[in-house]
Amino acid sequence: MTSDKTVSEIVETEGHLIDSQLMTEIFDAVVKHGASFEAVEFTIGRTNDEYSRLKMRVSATSDAAMKDLLEELLAFGCRTSGDVDATVQPAPTDGCAPDDFYSTSNHRTWVRYAGQWLEVERQRMDAAIVIERGRAMCRKLRDLRAGDQVVCFVEGLRVVPEFRERDRHGFAFMTGGISSERHVETSVARIADMIRDVKSAGGRIAFVVGPVVVHTGASGYFCDLVRRGYVDVLLAGNALAVHDIEAALYGTSLGVSLSTGSPVEGGHRHHMRAINAIRRAGGIRAAVESGLLTSGVMFECVRHNVPFVLAGSIRDDGPLPDTIMDLVEAQDQYAEALADVRIAVVLSTMLHGIGVGNMLPSWVKVVCVDINPSVVTKLVDRGSAQTLGLVTDTGLFVHQLASKLK
Amino acid sequence: MTSDKTVSEIVETEGHLIDSQLMTEIFDAVVKHGASFEAVEFTIGRTNDEYSRLKMRVSATSDAAMKDLLEELLAFGCRTSGDVDATVQPAPTDGCAPDDFYSTSNHRTWVRYAGQWLEVERQRMDAAIVIERGRAMCRKLRDLRAGDQVVCFVEGLRVVPEFRERDRHGFAFMTGGISSERHVETSVARIADMIRDVKSAGGRIAFVVGPVVVHTGASGYFCDLVRRGYVDVLLAGNALAVHDIEAALYGTSLGVSLSTGSPVEGGHRHHMRAINAIRRAGGIRAAVESGLLTSGVMFECVRHNVPFVLAGSIRDDGPLPDTIMDLVEAQDQYAEALADVRIAVVLSTMLHGIGVGNMLPSWVKVVCVDINPSVVTKLVDRGSAQTLGLVTDTGLFVHQLASKLK
Amino acid sequence: MTSDKTVSEIVETEGHLIDSQLMTEIFDAVVKHGASFEAVEFTIGRTNDEYSRLKMRVSATSDAAMKDLLEELLAFGCRTSGDVDATVQPAPTDGCAPDDFYSTSNHRTWVRYAGQWLEVERQRMDAAIVIERGRAMCRKLRDLRAGDQVVCFVEGLRVVPEFRERDRHGFAFMTGGISSERHVETSVARIADMIRDVKSAGGRIAFVVGPVVVHTGASGYFCDLVRRGYVDVLLAGNALAVHDIEAALYGTSLGVSLSTGSPVEGGHRHHMRAINAIRRAGGIRAAVESGLLTSGVMFECVRHNVPFVLAGSIRDDGPLPDTIMDLVEAQDQYAEALADVRIAVVLSTMLHGIGVGNMLPSWVKVVCVDINPSVVTKLVDRGSAQTLGLVTDTGLFVHQLASKLK
Amino acid sequence: MTSDKTVSEIVETEGHLIDSQLMTEIFDAVVKHGASFEAVEFTIGRTNDEYSRLKMRVSATSDAAMKDLLEELLAFGCRTSGDVDATVQPAPTDGCAPDDFYSTSNHRTWVRYAGQWLEVERQRMDAAIVIERGRAMCRKLRDLRAGDQVVCFVEGLRVVPEFRERDRHGFAFMTGGISSERHVETSVARIADMIRDVKSAGGRIAFVVGPVVVHTGASGYFCDLVRRGYVDVLLAGNALAVHDIEAALYGTSLGVSLSTGSPVEGGHRHHMRAINAIRRAGGIRAAVESGLLTSGVMFECVRHNVPFVLAGSIRDDGPLPDTIMDLVEAQDQYAEALADVRIAVVLSTMLHGIGVGNMLPSWVKVVCVDINPSVVTKLVDRGSAQTLGLVTDTGLFVHQLASKLK
Repeated sequence: MTSDKTVSEIVETEGHLIDSQLMTEIFDAVVKHGASFEAVEFTIGRTNDEYSRLKMRVSATSDAAMKDLLEELLAFGCRTSGDVDATVQPAPTDGCAPDDFYSTSNHRTWVRYAGQWLEVERQRMDAAIVIERGRAMCRKLRDLRAGDQVVCFVEGLRVVPEFRERDRHGFAFMTGGISSERHVETSVARIADMIRDVKSAGGRIAFVVGPVVVHTGASGYFCDLVRRGYVDVLLAGNALAVHDIEAALYGTSLGVSLSTGSPVEGGHRHHMRAINAIRRAGGIRAAVESGLLTSGVMFECVRHNVPFVLAGSIRDDGPLPDTIMDLVEAQDQYAEALADVRIAVVLSTMLHGIGVGNMLPSWVKVVCVDINPSVVTKLVDRGSAQTLGLVTDTGLFVHQLASKLK
Repeated sequence: MTSDKTVSEIVETEGHLIDSQLMTEIFDAVVKHGASFEAVEFTIGRTNDEYSRLKMRVSATSDAAMKDLLEELLAFGCRTSGDVDATVQPAPTDGCAPDDFYSTSNHRTWVRYAGQWLEVERQRMDAAIVIERGRAMCRKLRDLRAGDQVVCFVEGLRVVPEFRERDRHGFAFMTGGISSERHVETSVARIADMIRDVKSAGGRIAFVVGPVVVHTGASGYFCDLVRRGYVDVLLAGNALAVHDIEAALYGTSLGVSLSTGSPVEGGHRHHMRAINAIRRAGGIRAAVESGLLTSGVMFECVRHNVPFVLAGSIRDDGPLPDTIMDLVEAQDQYAEALADVRIAVVLSTMLHGIGVGNMLPSWVKVVCVDINPSVVTKLVDRGSAQTLGLVTDTGLFVHQLASKLK
Repeated sequence: MTSDKTVSEIVETEGHLIDSQLMTEIFDAVVKHGASFEAVEFTIGRTNDEYSRLKMRVSATSDAAMKDLLEELLAFGCRTSGDVDATVQPAPTDGCAPDDFYSTSNHRTWVRYAGQWLEVERQRMDAAIVIERGRAMCRKLRDLRAGDQVVCFVEGLRVVPEFRERDRHGFAFMTGGISSERHVETSVARIADMIRDVKSAGGRIAFVVGPVVVHTGASGYFCDLVRRGYVDVLLAGNALAVHDIEAALYGTSLGVSLSTGSPVEGGHRHHMRAINAIRRAGGIRAAVESGLLTSGVMFECVRHNVPFVLAGSIRDDGPLPDTIMDLVEAQDQYAEALADVRIAVVLSTMLHGIGVGNMLPSWVKVVCVDINPSVVTKLVDRGSAQTLGLVTDTGLFVHQLASKLK
Repeated sequence: MTSDKTVSEIVETEGHLIDSQLMTEIFDAVVKHGASFEAVEFTIGRTNDEYSRLKMRVSATSDAAMKDLLEELLAFGCRTSGDVDATVQPAPTDGCAPDDFYSTSNHRTWVRYAGQWLEVERQRMDAAIVIERGRAMCRKLRDLRAGDQVVCFVEGLRVVPEFRERDRHGFAFMTGGISSERHVETSVARIADMIRDVKSAGGRIAFVVGPVVVHTGASGYFCDLVRRGYVDVLLAGNALAVHDIEAALYGTSLGVSLSTGSPVEGGHRHHMRAINAIRRAGGIRAAVESGLLTSGVMFECVRHNVPFVLAGSIRDDGPLPDTIMDLVEAQDQYAEALADVRIAVVLSTMLHGIGVGNMLPSWVKVVCVDINPSVVTKLVDRGSAQTLGLVTDTGLFVHQLASKLK
């Protein structure tokens, strides 16, 4: 391949290209790849509700560069014209894809196979697409088995990115940026509206919760949310459960830590004894059933049949018997728990928040609350149309949210 | 002076040397100055209430090093034994001190003059001490006049640092460190107790307030504090008043900014027109009296006769006629307004918070609230026994505080 | 005015509307104002270099809402069709504009007056536009005099926003977001390229510098930049000069603070004595000329005839005689010093950085470096096409920059 | 037990009680537990080198409160007088300790057993102590087997906390606080000295590294450290290795990402293909041996026989075959790798940094570098005598460190 060769393709897309800044991203992508574009046709949506349509010719200096570019453009909804079937190749060995496999985004995706457009099931990012018995579905690399029919690069694929919704609940405007100078209570009120709407439509809500909810004294308010049915599944780590149980078992009798509000980190008695007590009881549910554990977030989850998944981490003490230290298993259980969720609310946990973000399709809304703007920025940068970031005190946020959902 | 010369002095101090970590600081200071110490006598306070007493010999390698060391030790309460009068020299010209002038700390200070120990008046840091008509008082360099009798280095001076108070309102324990993982509502409850105690003892409270209080939608709650008499003086900058007045004049009729909570920075219509409107009215008070300004923080201050001082800054637009752009004048008015204040509550303004911190003696408590831990750390580092730092959402903090002070 | 009245206008604009996200901002603005739009004509720039053109009909529910909307759209380059002269009204009193005055953005602006389009001089944001002897110029509210001919709302005005430049020095791509996870050395190399280009074209560069440059030990590297002619003007506050001079006068003889790197804040001997010494000398230049001050940033500026302006603030100690405590004067001197500057590099000072940002037209590039992402975000949010934000260690940045500019 | 009962104990300790602030912590602990103290004897270390000695009577209101207090005091080096053997009870079941088991700190600990003081082996925090064949050793709860002889509360135990070392390498003074305003290059020089000293004494050094080292373009400098033998073991997560390998496999040919410095997060081609390529190769070592992987951090580790352990997390993509997703196994391998390490350098990874911190005894120094002060504070708060925190740009830090270690 010589460097003066020029390769061209016609690509097309439509949607809220202006509002969602897709046009800007498309043009940036072209320039970033050292390619050029020429707009062949562009029809602008005349009003806020109408779609815009773009047809352009992109030119790159090599087939490889064009391939890269087309794959990136695919995620912005661009497709090459002409209806051809996707290329499918068998997985070479267990746990591996063909070299040219198409790695998914989290947007709705269709694959053309045997002349039919199949919508991809279990959409998530960073997966391969497997064709099986006339259906297309996302499969993680490690779950591939030799011979699986894997979709390879880039023909016969269509991706439909989520568009910013401009008016519903003011969600769109809130996603414009991250700031600690917002009118927080207004934001909380809108989040409460969204949650109430989802619940009344029968939708499920996941809460992804860091231990700060306990440290800041907000677990009582979170328990309210559990009792009132707003928590359909709780995703967390070992620390949340340990701190919650430590407070339940020792907090009130000694009172020191909960009255001063100073969490004491590190090798101290109650922390490890709480873990030991639950280990002896045989787990959290057993501790509730035996009457050992009688309050707190984990207790309320057990009592109200709210499923919880605790994923282990390298920093965990103990751990509790309920904490899943095999992370392949933990990821699978998280993903299972998130199926059908309509909103995920991430409270002060970057680790589990990113974990959850990786598993969700782009049409599930994510609310991310943290006092540290870097955490919020990191989560929002992964998908700004999807994620509402709020920089505020998580404890006071949970208090406000519980009040507004009364 | 040869480098092998050794100079020794006996210094003494007493107080809550252990609890307040003064011993550690004293020994650190000695080692940091390349000097050495030998403890001659140490009596430990047998209980939490008793004072400890330390007598030690410090040795340095030169007179100059010893002088430096003794000045630093002075601020930790150490004095050289022997009762000699302080050295006093005349200020050489207006606005200048003698080279060897003693630069004050913010702790209670006594000067021995003509055989009498005089308590220094108007205590503040970074000032000179002037003896005038048998009294000693702090005076800033720029306020010195040629011939003023200025206390020079280091004999005849005693400083009594504040000790950490261990039990009152839990203030001491809260000052131990900065964390966003605290039990915030407990902290707010204690601050509310402190404020109530000070008010019922007839004490005055200053609020030092940044524009975030308006941006976060908390000005309504702050107005409650003004109406209920908890704000004895408001110290702020141009921006707080401008944003507050902009909200009062335009916020409700248009509703855009206050309903979405997105503050729009920069050259926009309402911002500058609010300034222009107040300029035309002749100032904030005139705007209230003429019926132009009918709500908001500044309105409530005028209506409830709460004095306010607005200090200018390089970034100010306008400014409002009330904003003092001559900072010598602004500093003087701030200092005047802070006389007799018992607590200063600093809400999301590093600039004005540091300004106020510079002016306060060490026995005035400072509460510093900001969502940015760097700001809180910076203010707390200036005096950890004096300052309670709280990393939380300022808007929600003001809401909580107003609720707890109902 | 009844609420069911609908007002319509045709507005037009052209430029890099997609790349610079102006289209998105325009449509957002319409929706935010409760108005609606209908695209009448849109021609897309076929390539990266061509302009796009938009003509649309906007409809609002009242004249007032339309007026607000048009003013906001003006800043995105939209103009109403039809060539009419701007409305001009006399300033009612000194220091005040007519109620309906047009408050400037920092973009290039033209006013139609007596049938001529006049380019506005001394462009800056938040000013009024005055017509005087056939010329149009920005004037701050406080500088208006009764009778000045002030341009009032919104006819006869054209604004041309800066477009993102996509390719030059990679500046545009670097402005896309704020992150501490960037390839910092690449960013420094590009900033060095920009600076070198500006210098070789005879352009001027302003550095706006906080005291962290001294605390972090980077002042030696900054002195290199001064000596090599890269600093055309230094804008700072009292603290930079005081810390720099303190280090020059006392740092090396004692060595304590500079060898451990721990800055000691607050009322300590060298700090105030440095101030006093300069006050006695009669100012920084006098201290250099008398041989008192022989090293450091301020010394190098004096020796190399680099003008500096030190603006006072409420937290200043002393201050130095050179520090301008009258902020009206300080703002005027800052603005004067910034005339003709092509790049402003802001090093760890939010206060002075925002001050400078307010004074610059949008075609002067701003580089903002701070270790705190909130500071960088705040400055970049004021004008993302104009400002390159870099979250890194300012001291190490200055070291790198000085190496790359050798 | 009635509430007016008073229980008293005599406790003693010695060491650098003042310098290391142990006295303050001891007295704080007593007051925090609602107990009181009376100093019976106190001998102060006369010089910087001498130990101080404290004997005091503590009084609590119940046996339980006294037990809690004594356990907390134990960690500050306090012991009850009288030489009695430790109480030992059998573990009730696999993976569980007796209710009253002593949970370890990370300080050197001795247990009195059969009249002998045994030093506890494999010291780490949050473990139980098991007596086995005349030896005492730390064992994690999950590793206990039914019948293991577990040391129970609090008699017969001695703990010797680390004291702040004041002079060696200036380490102690650097640990005083966290600040981004330090003289960074001085700090780097001292860390380089420490590392060189440890290496020349034959000590081992662990680096715990986050992916920011790759994003910021510092991996080349880190490779220098590996090649020169300063990295004895590398502890990281999946992301470091993936990003490093992605850069090695795709970074140079395309150049996009590495020349602009903008990391592109999320489902993009090279990221997942890098993972797939290593999976197909059978792991990192195999990929080096087959000639697939020819540069980067992981390559250098393989080539220079530097062992690495990659611990999985819930957010991992892939993962690489080398990433240990079973965290019980990962923690065990981390702990194994850290045996005999003398310094652990943590570069921008809170997760793995805390994991490592949990495993280290208090006499292993930890250097923690991050641009986010919250991360540094969190790690330093776990053991301020042990940990040196530096808030700076990690990429530039690694560059500086590599230069200083040339």
